[in-house]
Amino acid sequence: MTARFDVLAIGNAIVDVLAHADDRFLEENGIRKGAMTLIDEAGAAALYDKMPPGVEVSGGSAANTAVGVASLGGKAAYIGKVRDDVLGSVFVHDIRAAGVAFDMEPAKEGPTTARCLILVTPDAQRSMNTYLGACVGLTPADIDAGLVTAAEVTYLEGYLYDPPDAKKAFHKAASIAKAAGRKVALTLSDPFCVDRYRTEFQELVADHVDILFANEAEIKSLYRTQTFEGAMTIVRDKCELAVLTRSEKGSLIVNAAGTHKIAARTLGPVVDTTGAGDLYAAGFLFGLTNRRDLRTCGELGSLAAAEIISHFGPRPETPLRQLMARDAF
Amino acid sequence: MTARFDVLAIGNAIVDVLAHADDRFLEENGIRKGAMTLIDEAGAAALYDKMPPGVEVSGGSAANTAVGVASLGGKAAYIGKVRDDVLGSVFVHDIRAAGVAFDMEPAKEGPTTARCLILVTPDAQRSMNTYLGACVGLTPADIDAGLVTAAEVTYLEGYLYDPPDAKKAFHKAASIAKAAGRKVALTLSDPFCVDRYRTEFQELVADHVDILFANEAEIKSLYRTQTFEGAMTIVRDKCELAVLTRSEKGSLIVNAAGTHKIAARTLGPVVDTTGAGDLYAAGFLFGLTNRRDLRTCGELGSLAAAEIISHFGPRPETPLRQLMARDAF
Repeated sequence: MTARFDVLAIGNAIVDVLAHADDRFLEENGIRKGAMTLIDEAGAAALYDKMPPGVEVSGGSAANTAVGVASLGGKAAYIGKVRDDVLGSVFVHDIRAAGVAFDMEPAKEGPTTARCLILVTPDAQRSMNTYLGACVGLTPADIDAGLVTAAEVTYLEGYLYDPPDAKKAFHKAASIAKAAGRKVALTLSDPFCVDRYRTEFQELVADHVDILFANEAEIKSLYRTQTFEGAMTIVRDKCELAVLTRSEKGSLIVNAAGTHKIAARTLGPVVDTTGAGDLYAAGFLFGLTNRRDLRTCGELGSLAAAEIISHFGPRPETPLRQLMARDAF
Repeated sequence: MTARFDVLAIGNAIVDVLAHADDRFLEENGIRKGAMTLIDEAGAAALYDKMPPGVEVSGGSAANTAVGVASLGGKAAYIGKVRDDVLGSVFVHDIRAAGVAFDMEPAKEGPTTARCLILVTPDAQRSMNTYLGACVGLTPADIDAGLVTAAEVTYLEGYLYDPPDAKKAFHKAASIAKAAGRKVALTLSDPFCVDRYRTEFQELVADHVDILFANEAEIKSLYRTQTFEGAMTIVRDKCELAVLTRSEKGSLIVNAAGTHKIAARTLGPVVDTTGAGDLYAAGFLFGLTNRRDLRTCGELGSLAAAEIISHFGPRPETPLRQLMARDAF
């Protein structure tokens, strides 16, 4: 059956609050540089009080990927949970206005829409502090089987393992996709997220995942290897396709047939790396679902990531299809 | 008496929602290019539904000026009204985190925090659509006489004439400042705002304002002159100091003694002109209250405006005191 969507992304629906900060601010507030740390509502309020002036932008890892696919001209859909509050309406507006199919009703009660307090240091690294809020309300009932079946790839974020019912929703979606002969893609999300769910993620990758996205720290954490090469050797046998990103060192596309090495790109100075991995995945999956060869998929990933790190925030400022056309992809 | 603050700014407390759009979007939605148009809550909801994905940043004309003064290293305070909702807490956080004294309690009932839907066209022009919300709740009771007396300059935005009680608050503040021997500064805000209150603004400028800020369209509208030069001739006799901005043509500082012409500046490509006038006023008033000569005041205005138009949104991304030090001011 022809898919109605190239990619269905499922994840924690979050609004980001981004601010510039120096390394001392991270140290003084016990923030793990480059990582995603979960905080509760009181912790979020306390950190926000201390943060410099900020900018609010819709975020959420898989949501950023869905928006990236749409920005490239692909057909994307999204599942994630917000509350019927101001930040929830911002999230819903932004993802729909970006051209992503998103039809879920916001929750009418319970915790507020999730927010992620992001400190961007002068080296363009982002350190994230997430209050999951309404995301804990995502349950298997929110997984529309028709939508999963209608998507060529169902893309899941590892972060979904943090809210317990969302993890069940994750598994339901993966099962439906498999049963329908669709592909399941997973991003490992964050090395500390891998620490929290290592055994489960190993089983997932071996048994359910067709396409795995991971950065260097995540894949080494998954297989507890000292070297990147060691992890790459292991993952090659575990799933159909592994896409391993290494920041400025580029990315590697790994499958049984071999390895493609793709260069990283920039479009001017690197301002903020928030969303780099999410947009790389968007470019790659857009390429894959539009029948491009693996090298081109990787190059589209590099291009989409290059746009996102050239400015503040994890959503494209320039329509990615414009950049793709300019570069004659 | 020594002033505790260089500048007390009083204005409509607003959170901006900024999005890129093309001229066709403005035409299709009847949006007046380059202007500020008042909309009601339903109009705001309807326009937001049609807007492309956005970014939320604290704004408000006089608030941007207060933040600019603080960013330059000056002592700034602010008076403006928000609700105790999410956007209100964003506004309060951002202005305090920028180092501006702001102690007003958010309203516990009534309309929501004001928002301004801003479309930025490819020519970097901004077209603003403001829902005043909680700003209509600013009343004379909110004007703290001690605060006004403690500020060397009380800076008022013409936009305050739109909410009726805020206009009364405006007059109370101006009277207190005058009685205390402090300076009163006014920005005319917008040519259509001048259309709405021309006679009153003319009287204000003649009788109560020491320092007037206006752009070319506003000053021509105030005195209904065909030419900029005609308006400049009239205003020279009307107040102690008139500061007239002309976008890329720079600015003119006009008083009884003569005229200083100041060049405009840019720091790289012009991305979004939102807040350009507000930040020019910040640079100028910081210079004036720190005993710099008029030419330097104008150059500080050009520098602050240059920073703000180099990126999306009306609040500085680079601390302005850094730029000032770099340029050996």
